This record gives sequence, C-alpha cells and structure tokens, in this order.
Amino acid sequence: MPELRKDPVTERWVIIATDRARRPSDFSREHAAPFTNRFCPFCPGNESKTAPEVYSARESSGWHVRVVPNKFPVLGIEGSPDRDAEGLYDKMNGLGAHEVIIETPRHNETLATMPEAQMEAVIWAWRSRVNDLKNDRRLRYVLLFKNHGEPAGATLEHAHSQLIALPVVPKRVMEEIEGSSRYYQYKERCIFCDILRQEAKTQTRVVTDSDKFLVTEPYAARFPFETWILPKRHESHFETIDAAEVRDLARSLRGILRKMDQVLEKPAYNFVIHTAPVQEKAMAHYHWHIEIIPKLTKVAGFEWGTGFYINPTPPEEAAQFLRDAVIEQ
Amino acid sequence: MPELRKDPVTERWVIIATDRARRPSDFSREHAAPFTNRFCPFCPGNESKTAPEVYSARESSGWHVRVVPNKFPVLGIEGSPDRDAEGLYDKMNGLGAHEVIIETPRHNETLATMPEAQMEAVIWAWRSRVNDLKNDRRLRYVLLFKNHGEPAGATLEHAHSQLIALPVVPKRVMEEIEGSSRYYQYKERCIFCDILRQEAKTQTRVVTDSDKFLVTEPYAARFPFETWILPKRHESHFETIDAAEVRDLARSLRGILRKMDQVLEKPAYNFVIHTAPVQEKAMAHYHWHIEIIPKLTKVAGFEWGTGFYINPTPPEEAAQFLRDAVIEQ
Repeated sequence: MPELRKDPVTERWVIIATDRARRPSDFSREHAAPFTNRFCPFCPGNESKTAPEVYSARESSGWHVRVVPNKFPVLGIEGSPDRDAEGLYDKMNGLGAHEVIIETPRHNETLATMPEAQMEAVIWAWRSRVNDLKNDRRLRYVLLFKNHGEPAGATLEHAHSQLIALPVVPKRVMEEIEGSSRYYQYKERCIFCDILRQEAKTQTRVVTDSDKFLVTEPYAARFPFETWILPKRHESHFETIDAAEVRDLARSLRGILRKMDQVLEKPAYNFVIHTAPVQEKAMAHYHWHIEIIPKLTKVAGFEWGTGFYINPTPPEEAAQFLRDAVIEQ
Repeated sequence: MPELRKDPVTERWVIIATDRARRPSDFSREHAAPFTNRFCPFCPGNESKTAPEVYSARESSGWHVRVVPNKFPVLGIEGSPDRDAEGLYDKMNGLGAHEVIIETPRHNETLATMPEAQMEAVIWAWRSRVNDLKNDRRLRYVLLFKNHGEPAGATLEHAHSQLIALPVVPKRVMEEIEGSSRYYQYKERCIFCDILRQEAKTQTRVVTDSDKFLVTEPYAARFPFETWILPKRHESHFETIDAAEVRDLARSLRGILRKMDQVLEKPAYNFVIHTAPVQEKAMAHYHWHIEIIPKLTKVAGFEWGTGFYINPTPPEEAAQFLRDAVIEQ
C-alpha cells in the first residue's frame, strides 16, 4: 500500500508510491542540453554586453566569478516600496534587485564539473551579495536560486545562478518559519536540528555526511531525488557561513551534483537556498538549508491547486542510488 | 515599474511584469499534440481494458461518459487510514480512491470541441462521484482535476479528467479556507463574493459574465492567462451544483477553453476544482471555484521554494485577449 507522509515543518502531505517505485532509468529525463557555440554574453571578452558588475572575484589572469544586474530585471532598485489598495486588493511598487551570478569564465563548465576552488568562489559571491543587499533596509528577503538546463527554466547555457531581493517575505518562507516556530514552542528545540540527528542516526535517507553538512533525501520528498543539504551548525541565516563551511559546502554541493549527473544522466535541476529574512535577527527555531530538485517528472495540475504531491520514488531508494554512485572528487 | 500584487485569499505575493508585458505570440507554447491512431483503452469497444466502471451515463446507443478506477492508482481503497510515527515524522496508510472520468466516447474530441450537452454530462459525472465518495467517512477531501496534453502531465490523449479522494485535507486547500475565514471574521462577508462584486464592477479582468458564472483573470495571477471560474451563488461545496448551474458551467467552461484554444493555439492546460472538504458542513466563508492554468511558461526553481511567482502578462491584458477572441458556441 502506498504511504502518506507529512513534512514536519510545513505539514504538507505527500503520497509516496512505495508499490511501484520508479528507478532512475524509468524517467523520461529532461536533460540539460549540450553546450553550443552561440554568442555568449557571460564569456570573458563580452563583459560590455552585461550591465556593469556589482561584484567580482579576480586575480591577474582575469575574473573567476562576476555578479551583474539582470539585463531584464523583474524588479527595479529605484523608489520606495509604497503600498496601495485597489478595491479589496493590495499592491506595492516592484522594488527590489535582480542579479546574475556568473559562476565561471569557462563556457563549458558546470557546478558539477568545475574545480572545488571555483565552487568556493561562487559561494563567497552569494554570501557577499546577501551581506551587501541586507544593508538596504527596504529589502526584506534575498532569494538565491539556480535553474540549470533549459527544462528547468535557464535561458542562457553559461553556468549562472540568480538572486532576487524583495521588499516582502515570500509565502512559503513564512510558512517554514512559522512551522519551525510552532515546533520550537512545543519542544524548545530546532526542528531541523532534530531532523539532522534523526537522519544521521537512521542513515536510510542520507547520501553524504561530512564534517559540516548532511546531504539527505527528505522524509516527505515531493519529487523523485529531491535532496536537501543541511548545515550541522544551527544558524538561521545563510550569509553567516564561515570559511570552513564554505569549503565543506563546495565539496558537498559539487559532490551531490556529480552524483546526480551520474545516476540521472545530467538532469536539468533547480535549487533554492532557504534562509531567514535578512532584516530579522538570528532565530533559534529556523535553520537555513538548500533544496535541490532534479527535473524528472512533469508537475500535474492538481499539484498547483493543492500543494499535494505524488512522488513515485521513495526517498530511501533515491538515497541508495545516490550513495552507490561512485564519483571522483 | 513592475508591480507586486497580493492574492487576498492566500496572501501570496506575485510580481506582475507590467513593463515588458508578453503577448500570446511571445510564448513558446507547449501544445497538446494532435491525435494519433494508437490503441486506446478509453475508446468504445475496449471497455474490458479498464477496471470495471463505477459510473456511466448511457442511452441505447451506448455510453456518453464513463468513470473507472485508475489502473495504476496512487492510493488504495481498502483498509483504514491508520496514523503512525517514524521518529519525529508522521505517516498514514495511503488510503483513498483514484478514478478516471472518460469525458467522451469520441477519441478526437476535447472539452473545447465537444457539444455542450456532452460537457454537461461530464459535470454531472463529477458531481455524482463526489456525492458518492463523501458517504465514505474515511475520505476527507475529493480532488477533481484535469491534465490536458502531454506537457501538462496527461499520459493518455483520449479526453479524461481525474479524481483523487484523500484521507487528509491538502495544505493549499486549508490555506484558502483559513485565509477566507480570516476575512470573514473581519468583514462578515465571503471574500470570493466580494471579488465577484468588484470584478463585475471594474470589468477589466473579466472574460465572460453569464447568469450563473463569472470567468475572470485573478488580480494576483501567478501564470499568464491563469483563469478562474466563480459561481455567482455562494456555496462552499461544488457537489451542490444544480441543473441550471450545470448548464451554465458547461457553457462557461467550454467557452473559455475555446477562447484559449484560439488565442493560445490549443495549449496544454491544467484545471482544478477548488472546493471545501467533503465531511464539512456548508461554510459561509468559503466559495468553490475552478482555476485553469494554460501551460505557457516553465516554472523556474525559486517558485517551488518560495511560492513566489513572476507573471510576465498582466491579467488585464490576458483578459482583453480572451474577451476579444470570437468563438462560435
């Protein structure tokens, strides 16, 4: 019989189809397309084709990582976030920032194939941009995410992640914070710290376990091979990450992406850094983390309407496939 | 400047990119594929290839609509919804029903192209199945939805909708009910009734306005051409729909699907009937309705993580395109 599982943070129920578990080879994968030779505005030499950079990591030979405002930003940085009504509705000026983190100067490199030092430079860029933007008190949330491959929404193939800074806190973020706060009020413990302890003990859903990060399939995974990266040190805000953690995160994130490339044959994927609102103080009940979703199944209609998901691959089996994948570091 | 808009029921913020509004021709649409001649288990003559039917509408010439259990159900109907713990996690037996509504005996017909009388028969089938399943007290929610076209998740091309009956109430449904309840406590009016009044007055987002139903683009539309069908009579439960409303809904739903076929060139789409939990009494604060989402844009990564959407087409412009589309009834 299939199983209904509840995510302990958001209280979202998921159907886990335990009977007819789908193996990696059963998915009609949506792959990231191979690299082409089209003109690329993110390649070295074409810097003038992007907006002026707001951050870069460089040495004499040139830049490693560049951050530039999005050429077609969804939000504008000028003005004030004035709120207004339209009858019973509420609206606000679309104030915010929309930036692109160009993750490498090399066009044919991905987060999975770049050297670890390059991945570290990307994480430092993320951290630096959040710490800079939080000084702007109009901005309440900074969203860091990546769309890899056209099926996952990427419009340019050169490796990049994105940042959207918002004058509001997104709904699902509020939901996670409220959910973990309810747990904290009851238990006086962080729910993510409890998840870390339980997963490390049972091991059935763990993919890799390093000094600073646990890479694990979540108990109530919405999608096949959905994977979370949880920092072992309790901290609500991603931007507090320290040097040792940057090194370990680079290794852990690159490692899981390499494993996914192997098991799922270079899938398109999305990931999002889940972190606390930038203007809030450190929270005892919330715990930043990364959620990775490879693009393996089409999302059917009712999932939009209900927040109710059917996952054809139990996370325990996904974890086993990913654990078994041998990668060179 | 783009605009941030808040959905008044769920309090979800959406970016509406008013500057660079996208017209129907700007989307790389994901079409429903043309019909093929593959063997079809839903065609007349192949009734033995489905599970035994649980409902049919027939006359001497044969059936118009059949409802059969899904051959690969995601939930099983036997047993009890026992709850259990797994450390800090909660789970439940996957008890429930999963049925397929075969909407027509004619393989090359869609909801948009079938006669209105056929669409009425489909709506009666939906109504009848909900009223039957609600007698089973283990089932707390009945989800009715349709995936049209392979890009929207349909695996068979013969026109069909689906029903999933659940022992839990999905998260987003609870969220809508709680949101509308907060409004009711404050205003002592149903928020959907207020939306109906305001939209009918301003008309800028209205597509069609009939005796019993308003077809409108929502103020904080998450997706381009997202469309809602709201019944004018306040009622929390879809299954209370009466004969006059069935006739009007058939005309309204068929009408909007024909308009979408014209404006968006036969897009793949999903719709979901949003309705109150079946074991609950009539609610003064909740109002059933249908949400239709044509499959025009890829959903990017951060939307999963945040419930925060970017919509490149203002609903006012989408409404204008759909209003202007002239269809024969």
